[in-house]
Order: sequence, then C-alpha cells, then structure tokens
Amino acid sequence: MSLSELGEFGLIDRLRALTGEPPEGELWIGDDTAVLRAPGGTLLFTADLLVEGVHFDLAWTAPEDLGWKAIAVNASDVAAMGGTPRRALVSLGVRPGTEPGFLEALYRGMRACCDRFGLAVAGGDVSRASELVVSVAMLGNPAGRRVFERRGAAPGDTVCVTGTLGAAAAGLALLRAGRPARPDLAAAHCRPVPRVREAEVLRRHLPSAMIDVSDGLASDLGHLCAASGVGAQIGAERLPAVDLTGAGLDADPLALALTGGEDYELCFTIPPDRAARAAAAVEAETGTPVHLVGEVTDRAGELALTRAGQPEPLPLPPGGWDHFRS
Amino acid sequence: MSLSELGEFGLIDRLRALTGEPPEGELWIGDDTAVLRAPGGTLLFTADLLVEGVHFDLAWTAPEDLGWKAIAVNASDVAAMGGTPRRALVSLGVRPGTEPGFLEALYRGMRACCDRFGLAVAGGDVSRASELVVSVAMLGNPAGRRVFERRGAAPGDTVCVTGTLGAAAAGLALLRAGRPARPDLAAAHCRPVPRVREAEVLRRHLPSAMIDVSDGLASDLGHLCAASGVGAQIGAERLPAVDLTGAGLDADPLALALTGGEDYELCFTIPPDRAARAAAAVEAETGTPVHLVGEVTDRAGELALTRAGQPEPLPLPPGGWDHFRS
Repeated sequence: MSLSELGEFGLIDRLRALTGEPPEGELWIGDDTAVLRAPGGTLLFTADLLVEGVHFDLAWTAPEDLGWKAIAVNASDVAAMGGTPRRALVSLGVRPGTEPGFLEALYRGMRACCDRFGLAVAGGDVSRASELVVSVAMLGNPAGRRVFERRGAAPGDTVCVTGTLGAAAAGLALLRAGRPARPDLAAAHCRPVPRVREAEVLRRHLPSAMIDVSDGLASDLGHLCAASGVGAQIGAERLPAVDLTGAGLDADPLALALTGGEDYELCFTIPPDRAARAAAAVEAETGTPVHLVGEVTDRAGELALTRAGQPEPLPLPPGGWDHFRS
Repeated sequence: MSLSELGEFGLIDRLRALTGEPPEGELWIGDDTAVLRAPGGTLLFTADLLVEGVHFDLAWTAPEDLGWKAIAVNASDVAAMGGTPRRALVSLGVRPGTEPGFLEALYRGMRACCDRFGLAVAGGDVSRASELVVSVAMLGNPAGRRVFERRGAAPGDTVCVTGTLGAAAAGLALLRAGRPARPDLAAAHCRPVPRVREAEVLRRHLPSAMIDVSDGLASDLGHLCAASGVGAQIGAERLPAVDLTGAGLDADPLALALTGGEDYELCFTIPPDRAARAAAAVEAETGTPVHLVGEVTDRAGELALTRAGQPEPLPLPPGGWDHFRS
C-alpha cells in the first residue's frame, strides 16, 4: 500500500504500533501533546513541522509571521491540553542563499509570540536544506497533574468552541488568489492567536475533553469523538462561522467553519450544567467569545449537522487535511 | 553579509541575540543541550535536524540505520551534559512517493536505539516535504541538579576522550567512494553508539567540562575551550586515532581524528589527580577505553598539537563542519 492510499492518519497508526506502550500515567501518540511524567510532575511535550510549499508560501507569508505562527501552533497544542507553554526548541532547515536578515525576522516573529505568552526559545539546530523547514518542539506545564485529553466526552455534554471558525481558511483563499485580503482574515491565517489564556480560564471549569481546531472542526471534533467513543450533533446556525461580508470571497462560511482548518480555536466538551458558566468566564476574563454549538451523543463516530432541528448534510466529507492524500 | 560569509556559528550568534537572556539557573543556546528548570527539578532539552543530502545519503544509509542515528545523535548531546536521555519527539518530512515500509524501518531503527538506552519516542509530527527530513527533540534528566557544561575547564586539567576518533569519517569516505567499507568503520558512520552509559559513570567522577565530539575533536574541544576561557595542548601520539590498516583508505588517521566529525565520543576535562581513576572506572563498567590526550592551558582559545613534546601544526584548520560555509 502506498503512502497516498494509506494517508497521514493510517501512517501514524502504523508508526504508533512501532513505538511501544507508554508507562502508566503517560500519554504518547494520539492527543494534542504527549504527556510525560518527570521527577517533579507532569510535562506536556509537542512538536510541529512547518514545510515551505506545504504549510506556508513565502510569496505572501512574511518571515515575522512565519516565526509567530511556528510558535503559535505549538502553543495551541499545549493550550488544548489545558497547559501553559514554557520553552521551545527551533530546528531550521535553510536554503543556502537565504539572507541572514530573513532568519532574524523569523526569530523576531517567534520572539513576539513567545513574549506575548510568557515562553521562550531555548535553543535548537540549524542546517542547510533545499526548502525552508521550521521544526518546533515545545514543553508546557499542565495545571497541577490534571490534563485535558481528547477522550473524556460523555453523551449529553455540551460541545463548545472559542472565537471564530473559517477565518484562517478564508484568508488563505484570498491570499492564494492574489486578492487583497480583509485584514482580519489575512491575520487569522498569518498570525493565529493560540488560545493560551482561554485554556487557563477553562481548565478551572473542568472540560470533559478538549482539542484545538487545526484541521477544521469536523475533523478535529471527529478526533475528539473517536477518542471518547461518542458522537456529536452540531447546530449549523450555532456555529461561529466567519462573516464574509465584503470579503470578496465566494465561499460557504459553514463549509469553511467545518473543514477550513488552521483556526487554532479550542473545541471542548463539558457537562451542560457547567457550560454557560465556563463560557461566560472565558469571555469575561479574555474577551474571547465561547459558543455552545452542539451536544455529545452516544452514536459513536457519528458527526451530525442539523439546521433548525432538521438533519443537514455535512458540506464536505469530514476528512480534514491529510498530508499524503491531498 | 550573506549566510555563506556569516557561517553557521555566526548565524547562531545573531539568532541567540534575538532569543533573550535565560533566567537564573537555565542555560539556553551554546551547549550540547538547553538546561531548563521545571517545577520538580532540572531538565535537559535538545534537538537535531537530519536532512537528506546534507546529513545522510540514502544510497548507502539503510532506513533502520538512519532511525538509529537520529536518536543516537540526540542521546549523545544529553550524555554530554552528564544526563540520561528519556523521551523524544520525531517530526518527519516525507517525500510523497515514499514507501510506508521505509518509514516503518526508520521507526524500527529508532526503537532499537531507544530500547538500548531506555528511552522512548512519545510522538511527533509528519508532513510532506521534497526531501526526507528527520527532526528529533529529546528530553533528558541530569543526575540530580548537576549538569556538566562546556565551561568549567581549568588550566592544568587533563583532557580525555572516550573510544576512537576518526572511524565515522573513515567509514563515510569509503561509503562515499562506493568502496566496501570495513564493517567497524561503516558501523561507526551508520550506527554511532552514544556514550550514555559512559556518561553515567563519568558524572560520578565530576568532570570539570564535557562536550560530545560531533564536528571533530579540534572543533569540539575548541568550543569547550572557548566556553571555559582556556586553551588546550594535545599529544598527537596520545590520540585514539582510528587504525586504518587494511581499510583501503588513503587518509591521515590523525587528520580524521582531529577534524573528521560524527564520532559521538565524549571529550571531557578533569583535574589530573582524578583523571586516571575516572578513566579506569568508565573502562571497567562499560568496556569503553578512555584516553588521556592532553592538558588544559591558560592560553585562551589556543589549541596546540605536540608530538614527542615538540609543536606540530594542526593538520587542518580546526574549523569543523559549517553548514553554510562548506
């Protein structure tokens, strides 16, 4: 079977079988970060690789933005476990003709994101490469020993998401088309704001499961449901889909919200009696709205969309982004 | 100034200025690993990027060997701080046409090295890329809070190295030339054995400074001396240079030992009254010989080679490997 038939997630399943079983209390492959037991407590450990031509295009991505984003996407993974990002290592693969000033701008962007969230780049590696590669590994601390995994959602829980969905995908579509992108949409793609502060508030309200929305809500909520052995039902009109008024983009906001990717919002589940209070606390303390968009069901693996209570087909198969299939 | 004029180490100096100053008790850029303070103690954190065509050539590198080496080079950095490697994350950039079996073999090689040294791959990331990239980040534990840095060498200390120097470079030269490589030389290049056990013994004997030999002894001892503000004098006949008898390679073993690179031996300094005992303990407990090859001097930045007590020119400038100059 080829890599394109196997797909990214098929490959990860195969590789997971080769890494062995984690000891009691650790969590390896399969969540937003690995969870490790260290002598003094629990650590969150995650890595993300950004490759030129796959994750970014330098035609419309400034080096400062790329640096910011490389830190932000890892910080988002730590936040999705209810943790606080602390230290990162950055390995760069660099084309030989690259201007040192370009790399300094990349580092300034990383530093800006680090400073905003109280973390730091503590080192890394640099090598020649034929395309720009930015590989970040990040350590975070959970709140005490408690981490918020993808598993844990129970039927009846409320499904919530922070912020807006689909804005990053709309921004990318405009940039790709070479059209002027509405500043908020371009920023959603180029300078995503990881929901670190929101996670710090949320964890006090004990969500039952949490994930960050990096591949589109349908895909990421699908991962959360699969890990929890449940399903979910989402109300189309309850989704905080991007408002495309005046954006000059002919796209379905609902489709972008469900399958667009790179929003780096948090999606979490929580018992319904605590949902409104958790949402209000996040909004009061961070200014970020939290939307109650659906319910967890006992129909394992089934993601259903309704509009005014009636079933509605999902606008696209909830496959999400696959590095080898797409 | 271009990257090729600035060079790898010039670039790192510029980027270091952009990452800020570490808090008390932490060490960021500039040693074999970063040293971090976590709630329960000290952590060692390191990353190494292996890029196809730069660090390895798949024409003579089996995927199992590449996987082994990706783990080994990071474990070597942790060992060089006197630490024990514990967990790694692996980010892979993969050409779309790659066979899944190739990646499984890569993972088997990583697992073999992990199993040998009691560590584990806890996760990572995978992406498309136009060349194979293996990016590893590794966490290790020091012995207590004590770490063995590059700085700390004092004039009069004895300079020691483990094992053999130049074998990996000899193996690479033979493989590159398409000639049958003596198995021990090929293995030195393809399956370097990080000196994890040796470091665990050594740290009980309190070396004054330590580094791993990844770029050639001249370069790495040069880094140690620079960090310590000292110089060193090495006896040519005391170096454990590779024996090329019957290897079919026309090369100077001394030059390979000093500038060959990728040996992943440990180079350390230690007060002379403890050197012989430390060397004997490592050899007794691990079987790896330790050679007393020279002395630390007060001539900061000066690396001198002698033969029978007479000055001998260094066979090559001690520049070591530079990713952008070479």
